[in-house]
Amino acid sequence: MSQAVIFREFGKAEEVSALEVSPHPELQDGQILVRMLATPINPADINFIQGNYGIRPELPDTPGIEGTGRILESKAEGYPEGAHVIFLERVGTWKSHVVCEASKALVIDAKIDFLQASMLKVNPITAWRILTGYTKLKEGDWVIQNAANSGVGQCFIQIAKLLGLKTINVVRREGLEKDLLELGADHVLLDDNELVDKVREICGDKLPKLASNAVGGDSALRLMDALADQGVHVTYGAMSMRSLKVPNKFLIFKRIRLEGLWITKWIAEEKRKKIEETYAQLGEWVAAGKLTQKIDQTFRPDQLKEALVRAQESRRDGKVVIDWSDY
Amino acid sequence: MSQAVIFREFGKAEEVSALEVSPHPELQDGQILVRMLATPINPADINFIQGNYGIRPELPDTPGIEGTGRILESKAEGYPEGAHVIFLERVGTWKSHVVCEASKALVIDAKIDFLQASMLKVNPITAWRILTGYTKLKEGDWVIQNAANSGVGQCFIQIAKLLGLKTINVVRREGLEKDLLELGADHVLLDDNELVDKVREICGDKLPKLASNAVGGDSALRLMDALADQGVHVTYGAMSMRSLKVPNKFLIFKRIRLEGLWITKWIAEEKRKKIEETYAQLGEWVAAGKLTQKIDQTFRPDQLKEALVRAQESRRDGKVVIDWSDY
Repeated sequence: MSQAVIFREFGKAEEVSALEVSPHPELQDGQILVRMLATPINPADINFIQGNYGIRPELPDTPGIEGTGRILESKAEGYPEGAHVIFLERVGTWKSHVVCEASKALVIDAKIDFLQASMLKVNPITAWRILTGYTKLKEGDWVIQNAANSGVGQCFIQIAKLLGLKTINVVRREGLEKDLLELGADHVLLDDNELVDKVREICGDKLPKLASNAVGGDSALRLMDALADQGVHVTYGAMSMRSLKVPNKFLIFKRIRLEGLWITKWIAEEKRKKIEETYAQLGEWVAAGKLTQKIDQTFRPDQLKEALVRAQESRRDGKVVIDWSDY
Repeated sequence: MSQAVIFREFGKAEEVSALEVSPHPELQDGQILVRMLATPINPADINFIQGNYGIRPELPDTPGIEGTGRILESKAEGYPEGAHVIFLERVGTWKSHVVCEASKALVIDAKIDFLQASMLKVNPITAWRILTGYTKLKEGDWVIQNAANSGVGQCFIQIAKLLGLKTINVVRREGLEKDLLELGADHVLLDDNELVDKVREICGDKLPKLASNAVGGDSALRLMDALADQGVHVTYGAMSMRSLKVPNKFLIFKRIRLEGLWITKWIAEEKRKKIEETYAQLGEWVAAGKLTQKIDQTFRPDQLKEALVRAQESRRDGKVVIDWSDY
């Protein structure tokens, strides 16, 4: 029986969304029917249900910016039954069965663990895009990020290492150093007033050329301060909910550049070939165990409310994932 | 008798600087001796004397980031006696006689009025660089700037028009509209809370792709708000002395890019050929009367203190220039 998470008004995710029986439409030419295997709960999903995302859907709607599944039935060339896919465009993944235009899906290596594959769309490519899309870096260059223990943060550490870059990883609390060093972090520093001095000690005259910011406010400002002249500061999240403050001297005399990344928009606008090549590379790293994301806990779809509550707790150890595979 | 403005400590420009007799050094091979004709007083000069500029000189020093003069004596090929020059690198222009490496000077068309030529180095190329260096614009595109009545602002209006762009010009007080429209401005708007709505009314769905900011603070924020998606916001000044505030959504969802311009640094680092071509184009426009900067008042060098005081008053009508030609 086909089921889907539905929300009929914007609000607290755990209050306004529920699992409902929801028959999927009949398959048309060019479409595929996908049996979903796993869908993570991302902050963007929570924002989407709250009505605080970049786009506001007409209601009722089904959340879910990413996830993976297996093709049950196909009316599209290049999308064979049994193949595993992720979704490049919004299909509302929190369903047992997704019917969509095949072009919205991307076939991935079925050997990739499906829980890891469910998180392939957003975090790895966000980190990859920040590391490769904004400034030319060469092996041995330093890069810096805050929210280093987040999903994107952990991907950033691993991909930077694969690219030969050295990372300074800024976190808001003690106790994360060991795990991040094991992932490949070069340094883990607390997000406090000593941060900039410590970065200068570590990097000497080779200050970071790139900063990845998911926090905003004071933390974003410290990253600007830690950057080299003409460094680039990329914002992809705003956990502190505070605007960036940018001293004029950083723009004029230090000549830093500030950019932002909305990864789903980037994916939608980038050439398909580039997207496919990028996911092929990322998928290869995931399959080889070189790029993994931590999972805090998996939940069954009928544990939706618990899953949503857990996903919004601050001291998780990884992503919350809904496992549709046995349901 | 060779004279120079000298300051021996950082402080209020009119208090710490004075005109002094200052013999110039003997000419070496590769150098030129230039009899100065005119030097404007720029905000950057005031900041330099205050010790608030991007570089702090060893004291005593002579201010002056720009100016023009006539070559009196030359030991360098390509720099004939009688030729008029401006200076690409810092020589401290507030002197009757400048001796410098010829490569620091650029020969300009001697037909350009020397008061206009004295202001050719900084403002016109700042406006030109902002309009051409940050994003691809096509004829008919809208651009927006604050501080539209400043020297750079007036150059911005004229150069934008020469490039086929349409300008929205933001000013802090009433009464400037007529003058700016005569210069070629398309619209002149007050820098208040209605600004963004008015820009949307004027531009419809073709919002400005470029914003030029010399103010910072709330004014800079309004320019961000008025920009099109993926617009570029360039800061070259900070008249309000207030940091920029950048809402995260402008970076992430609106995908604006923030950059800064330190024009003297840009000139120092850019290829000489590009610099020469650019000044040739700008000089041609100035000689043809298509690009002019207003002069509030000229002063003799022995009126230095009056000139410095006047240059710091807010309601000037153009630049304050020291005229060395008759001195």
